[in-house]
This record gives sequence, C-alpha cells and structure tokens, in this order.
Amino acid sequence: MTEASSSSATGIDRRCLLAATGAAAVALGLDGGRSVYAQAGAPAAATPAPSPDAGKVSLERLPGGILLIGIDRAQAKNRLDPPILIGLGKAYYQLDHDDSLRVAVLHGVGSDFCVGLDVPAFNAAAAAGILPPKDPDFIGPAGIDQRRAKPVVVAVQGAVNSIGHELFLAADIRIAASDTLFAQLEVANGSFPAGGATVRFSREAGWGNAMRYMLTGDKWSAEEAYRMGLVQEITPPGKQLERATDLAKKVAAVAPLGVRAALASAHEAIAPEETAFKSLRPEFQRLQRSEDAAEARNALQQKRAPVFQGR
Amino acid sequence: MTEASSSSATGIDRRCLLAATGAAAVALGLDGGRSVYAQAGAPAAATPAPSPDAGKVSLERLPGGILLIGIDRAQAKNRLDPPILIGLGKAYYQLDHDDSLRVAVLHGVGSDFCVGLDVPAFNAAAAAGILPPKDPDFIGPAGIDQRRAKPVVVAVQGAVNSIGHELFLAADIRIAASDTLFAQLEVANGSFPAGGATVRFSREAGWGNAMRYMLTGDKWSAEEAYRMGLVQEITPPGKQLERATDLAKKVAAVAPLGVRAALASAHEAIAPEETAFKSLRPEFQRLQRSEDAAEARNALQQKRAPVFQGR
Amino acid sequence: MTEASSSSATGIDRRCLLAATGAAAVALGLDGGRSVYAQAGAPAAATPAPSPDAGKVSLERLPGGILLIGIDRAQAKNRLDPPILIGLGKAYYQLDHDDSLRVAVLHGVGSDFCVGLDVPAFNAAAAAGILPPKDPDFIGPAGIDQRRAKPVVVAVQGAVNSIGHELFLAADIRIAASDTLFAQLEVANGSFPAGGATVRFSREAGWGNAMRYMLTGDKWSAEEAYRMGLVQEITPPGKQLERATDLAKKVAAVAPLGVRAALASAHEAIAPEETAFKSLRPEFQRLQRSEDAAEARNALQQKRAPVFQGR
Repeated sequence: MTEASSSSATGIDRRCLLAATGAAAVALGLDGGRSVYAQAGAPAAATPAPSPDAGKVSLERLPGGILLIGIDRAQAKNRLDPPILIGLGKAYYQLDHDDSLRVAVLHGVGSDFCVGLDVPAFNAAAAAGILPPKDPDFIGPAGIDQRRAKPVVVAVQGAVNSIGHELFLAADIRIAASDTLFAQLEVANGSFPAGGATVRFSREAGWGNAMRYMLTGDKWSAEEAYRMGLVQEITPPGKQLERATDLAKKVAAVAPLGVRAALASAHEAIAPEETAFKSLRPEFQRLQRSEDAAEARNALQQKRAPVFQGR
Repeated sequence: MTEASSSSATGIDRRCLLAATGAAAVALGLDGGRSVYAQAGAPAAATPAPSPDAGKVSLERLPGGILLIGIDRAQAKNRLDPPILIGLGKAYYQLDHDDSLRVAVLHGVGSDFCVGLDVPAFNAAAAAGILPPKDPDFIGPAGIDQRRAKPVVVAVQGAVNSIGHELFLAADIRIAASDTLFAQLEVANGSFPAGGATVRFSREAGWGNAMRYMLTGDKWSAEEAYRMGLVQEITPPGKQLERATDLAKKVAAVAPLGVRAALASAHEAIAPEETAFKSLRPEFQRLQRSEDAAEARNALQQKRAPVFQGR
Repeated sequence: MTEASSSSATGIDRRCLLAATGAAAVALGLDGGRSVYAQAGAPAAATPAPSPDAGKVSLERLPGGILLIGIDRAQAKNRLDPPILIGLGKAYYQLDHDDSLRVAVLHGVGSDFCVGLDVPAFNAAAAAGILPPKDPDFIGPAGIDQRRAKPVVVAVQGAVNSIGHELFLAADIRIAASDTLFAQLEVANGSFPAGGATVRFSREAGWGNAMRYMLTGDKWSAEEAYRMGLVQEITPPGKQLERATDLAKKVAAVAPLGVRAALASAHEAIAPEETAFKSLRPEFQRLQRSEDAAEARNALQQKRAPVFQGR
C-alpha cells in the first residue's frame, strides 16, 4: 500500500489509482461470502506458497452431536487469516447440513480467542484469487450473508478484538473467562467493522454502550461485557470451554427441531437488520480506499500515531 | 398420540397420518386467536364435561379504573387451560373497550403464577370445537394477534414457565417476588414457544441471554431476570401484587390518552416483529406433527428421558 | 386554553373550535423540524419581544475538532425554549457540515441539564410564526426528522426531564453525574413524549423498564439509568463534562469516515423505528387538542391535581 499513500494524487485520483492497480487492500472483505471481494480489475496473481505460520481450524466431534470448532493459530494470537476464515465457514456449513450435529462450540486455541484480522494475508489471498471462497460448502462465520440454522456456543479468553468480537457477537450463547479483554478496533484503526458489530453490538449492549467502545477503540473487561448483556456467564480463566461445552450438551439434548425453529423465529423478528448487513461490504471497501486508511497503514508501518483528515 | 409414535410410517407418512386422523395435538395453538387452531379435518367431538379441576379467571375492579385479573387454578399451579385462556382474552378485551378502565394487573392466585400449558386440555378443547374461541370479545393475552391499547402490569411468584413466561413478557411492567423461578421449557420438551418468547425474550434480555435459557430449558431466578432487564422490581415473597397494584394506581392516575399513545408509538417502533409473530403458529403446528414431539409425549408418559432425532 | 376547557362543546366540537381559533397549544411540536408546527389556520401574530429570561446556546470549539454545545438558561433550570431549540439545531447542523468538526459534547450550564419544555414560550413562538424554524441550517436535536452524521456525547447532571431526557437519549454516548435525576413526565402531565422517548427509551432500557417510568412519571437515579443501560458512566457531581470531553477527544482522534460509517450502519439497522418517528407529531397535536390536555393546563394554573377523563 505504500506506493498509494506516497502518491501525490488527489483523493479522487488516488481512488482511481488504487482501483487501477487492483490494490489488494480494496479487495478485502469480511465473512468471506461469495462475490464479496472486489477484484478491482486485478488479474489473479500466482497462488502464494502457504505461510509457515498460517492458521487452521481444528474440528472435533463430541458425543451427542456437538461440533467443537477451534481457531488454531496460537503463535499469532489466533489472528484470523484466510485459512481460518475458510475453515470456519466450512465448519458452519457442516454444522447446518449434517443431521447428526446439533450445536457447535467455537473457541480459540491458546491464551487468546482472536486478536483481529490478518489484513496482509487477506490482501494477498484476494490478490491471488483464493478469496472469496469458491467452495459451495461455506457459510460465512460472521453471519452476514445468511442465517445459520443451528446454534453456536462461543467460549472466549484473552484478546477478543475486532473480527474476533464480531464472531463472538454472531454466536448464540457466549461464555467468557474472567481474564478476557474485548475491543472493537476498526474505527480507531482507520477502518470499519464490517462483520456485523455495527448491528449486533448496538442491539445487544444498547446504542450508547456500543458507541462508547466502538467509536473510541477502548477495551473492556469480561465483567463489563457481562454487565452490558453480551456475555451470559463468566468463568475462571481456563474454564470457559468446559462451561460452554456443558451448555452445548444441554442444547444438544433438547428437541433439535425446536431449537432450529426458535432460532429461525428470533432471526425473523430482527430481519430488518439484514438491510444494514447488505451495506457493510460496500462501506468497508469505500473506506479502505480512503486517504485515512492509507494514513493508518503508513502510521502503523512507521510506528507513529495516525493523523486522520476525514477523507 | 401414542398410536402415532408407535407407527412405522416414515416422517412424511406419519405427518399425513396425523393430519388424516385429525390428531388433537396438531390442533393446539397459543393465544387463542380466531382461526388459530388447525382443525386438521377432524369432526368436532362431543363437548366434554367440564373438568372438575378446570381453571377460571377472577376479575375485580379496583377504584380508579384498575382491572385486577387473576389466574385461578391454584390446585394445578395455575396451569393454563382453555377456560383460563378464554377468561384472560375476555378480560383483555374488556380492558381495552371499557372506557372506565385504565390499566390491568395480571396475577396468579396461590403460590405460582403459571406453571405452563395444559396440553391435554387444549387438545380436548380443540377436538371438541371449543377452541379457537368464537367470542368476538376476545383479545389474545399473549399479544400475538393484535396490539393491546391499554397497559398491563404483571405480578409473578413461584413458577413462571413457558406460556406463563410468555404472558409475563407480553405485559408492559413486570414485578416479581424474590422466590420466582422462571423457565421457557417448550424447546426442552420437544415443542416450540409459540406465544411470543422467541421475539420478546430476545428483544428484552438480549439474544445471548434468551438463547442461553430458551435452548436449554434451564431455570433462572428473579434476581437473574432483574439483571437481564425482564423484571422492573423484585419484592419480598407475597408483596408482588401489592407493589404491582401501587404502580398500576400511578398509571391509572395519569392521562389515559397519553398512556395509549405512548404504548401505540412504542409498538409501532417494533412493528417488524409482527412478521415473526405470524410464523409462530404454523411453526408450532409443524413441530407438533414431528416424530420428536411424539417421542416427547411418549417419554413423558413412560417417565423416561426423551431421545430426539431431529425429525 | 382556559376558554377551551370551560367550553361545553363535545369532544369533536371542541377540537374544531380549537382548530378554528388556531390555539397556540395545538401548534406546538418538538424537534423543530420544518413543516412541523401545525399552523391551524392562525395568522401569525406580531413578533413578541424577546423574553428577558430567554435561553441561548453557547458554542465553543475545542482542539481536535470538538464542538462544545451548552444549553444556557440556568436561571430557568435550562427549560428548553425556542431560542435553545433553534440554537441546538444550528449547532447540530454545523457539526455535520463543518469538515473540521468530528464530534460534539452537549451539556447544560448550571446545576441541571434540562428540566423540560417551556410550553408557553413554544406556543407564543408558534403563534408568532417564529416556529417552525425557517433556517435551512437546522437539524432537529431530538433526531426525529433526520439522522445526524456525526456523534454527540452528552453530559448530564441535576434534572433531566421530558425533552431533556429525549435529547439525552438521542445522543450517542451518555455520561451522568451521580446526582442526576431523570424523568419522562409528559404522560403524567397530560401530554405525549413526542421527541423520541417512546422509541428510544424502550429500545435502550427494555420495554418494561421504559414503561415502568414513562407511564407513571416516577423519577429515577443515575444509578438506575446505568443499570438499565442508558448511561455509560457515572461520575462524581461536577465531573461529568470533563469525562464526556475526554471520551469525545478519543472519538475525535479516530478515523472520521469510520465513525460516520459506523453510525450510519447502526442507524440503518434500526431504520424501521423511523416509521414510528413519523407518527409522533400528529399524535402530539391530537393529544394537545384533547380535553385532558386542557384539564392538565387548568390544574397546573389552579395548583391542583388534574382529573383525567380519557378524552
């Protein structure tokens, strides 16, 4: 991105330039839905070699129809990269389409749930044509493109940032270890939370509580998340997955058709939110092309505070 | 229902079979709205003799325009049977149409507010053609079919289960004794909460809090209901009706047109939820025809835990 | 209004009478949006002399793009009169249209935030043709007619009543001193909260919590507002503006396009509420023409409790 931000082009010209060069940053989207990633005219580059620290998603079936889904990239605090996005989407597809599965438990391997999005890896994958996912067996894990039919219980600990918090919000029952620290950092970082937080954070915590954190980038604790209604239970550190699994066992034992019908009815009651979901990606892409987004990237590289101009 | 569950028919065949036999369970609906109960081709049976333990609704006018509405079937923990449903619906109609009435206080006689629905009694009444109510002076007390124009304050104690919790959620101001225990049991029991909980529980307590209880069947306390925002005040046991009546007196003293206009405006803001309400009964009836619903009924009869198959 | 309430006309006749005389009370609206005030056929009276205790709005630019907006009529507990309404609307317009501004902090000068609406002053201004505001550079501060594009942090203390509470609810982040006392008094006073409380109070605090206060006129504390999710932080008395400004500095430092896009997306998710907003003024005007509204005004003049008839 540095060539773009060092350009002397005007805001409009810069946007054209970015589009013309197919700059990867403009191609980034969230939830990995099909036809999501603006290709911006760029021909697909050669498939990159798999990153040595690429993430993966671990899957385990527990008795009773529970699918344990682990975000597994502890060496990078579970920063969400394309393999994790694709793995989650395939796991959620499997959950919905395998009749023997009743409920999933989503968790993060290691000391953090998910520290945010691996933007460079997403950009590279988009440029390489790996994203958006081509697989038909994929349901976006942020719950933007389609409603899941079966419930997800999430267990979090450590850092739950940005897309990590959006995956958390998209889950149906939420358990947090007492050492969890949450943040919705996109706005503070010159970007835009395109994974559902603008809709779900406000709905679940209230407008004022959501804006207080989303518009400042301040972190908040598990206790504060519990107070705001985002977390159903707090556990001692390390016990969150066990507790989430206990609850999932209960969900797995009750009538599956009732579970699905209850979820569907509750989704129907908030269906107007889906209009807002449709705007998330265009807004994200528009902001990624802004001068401020370039400034944020430069400031990060140069280890200084960004100075935003609002354009 | 046992003949249905012992049938070797396939799921589809079984549904046809149930429809053809006009099995009473498929005719059950909630809120008693007109044209609610699918008659499923069954000719009306002879009117059953009134049950010796049938419930009733007690009505008392308090000074100032307060209608005290009591669910009165203490011998069965106020399990809601057709006479109670009809009595409540007529009381709510009276509230809305009698200009001298300003507000109602809904409560349960005895040690429990309402332990749930009397499914056999509903089935018998539907088979007998008593339900749906034919009376024009009826407003469904679960608030699914139409919006009430005047407010209801509810006072609860003891067990507040399933349809009991839905009547509670449909009220406008909610007072609970500290010994109250809540549960939304339908999903756990192989059925579906068709009285508004999928919509109102999620809206009032937050998605995660509602799903945590609705999808497990776990009970929760008055204190937890207060924390989740469902209850406005907790009183010592036995004081809940007095406190609810005190608040109703205040509501009765302010300008009635303002009260009605404020309620109407607040309802208009959440009008999209009414789309979800329209789906509740078809979903309920669909699930009642499922194999799992039959399994739940069998397990209950046989005093064993049900084993659900998701069909 | 006294002649109207002493009239022996029927309800319908009285409404006609009021309309024919262009009684000022029927012309009152909130949010000052254009084409808001029903002129009721009355010719504009002569412009009244400015009131000696008329309010004003103080504006101050703080470094970093923060607009400090002060409701300044401490001698009348910041009762909102037409100059304050117009001043707020112009300040909000300036906020949205001045690219160097990022966020506003709204506060009240003196010991109260805003004790309510100055109804006689509004009636006089409407009769004089001063209201509705003719200025194109005006955005209604109650957020009924259009969505603000930039965020407002509000700091409150002392009395926060009626339209004061609605301005508070319309803000995006809310800080309260521990000595704050809130009330939504319109319904208790024979009127109707037409500035958004019916929509936002219910959404933010939950239906039951909002109705418990809105339908009784009871006051509530900062602690209770915090519990209900309406307030993000409580400060010691006198520290609320400093804390609100600290948060505004953080909002001002993050990416402005992201802030605006996040607000816009969150607004889009609750867009169905705008249908309810459209009904507020007609309802307000309808209720102002009621006998009960006249009774409320008479009772106030005669220092007695009003007796409402529901017409």
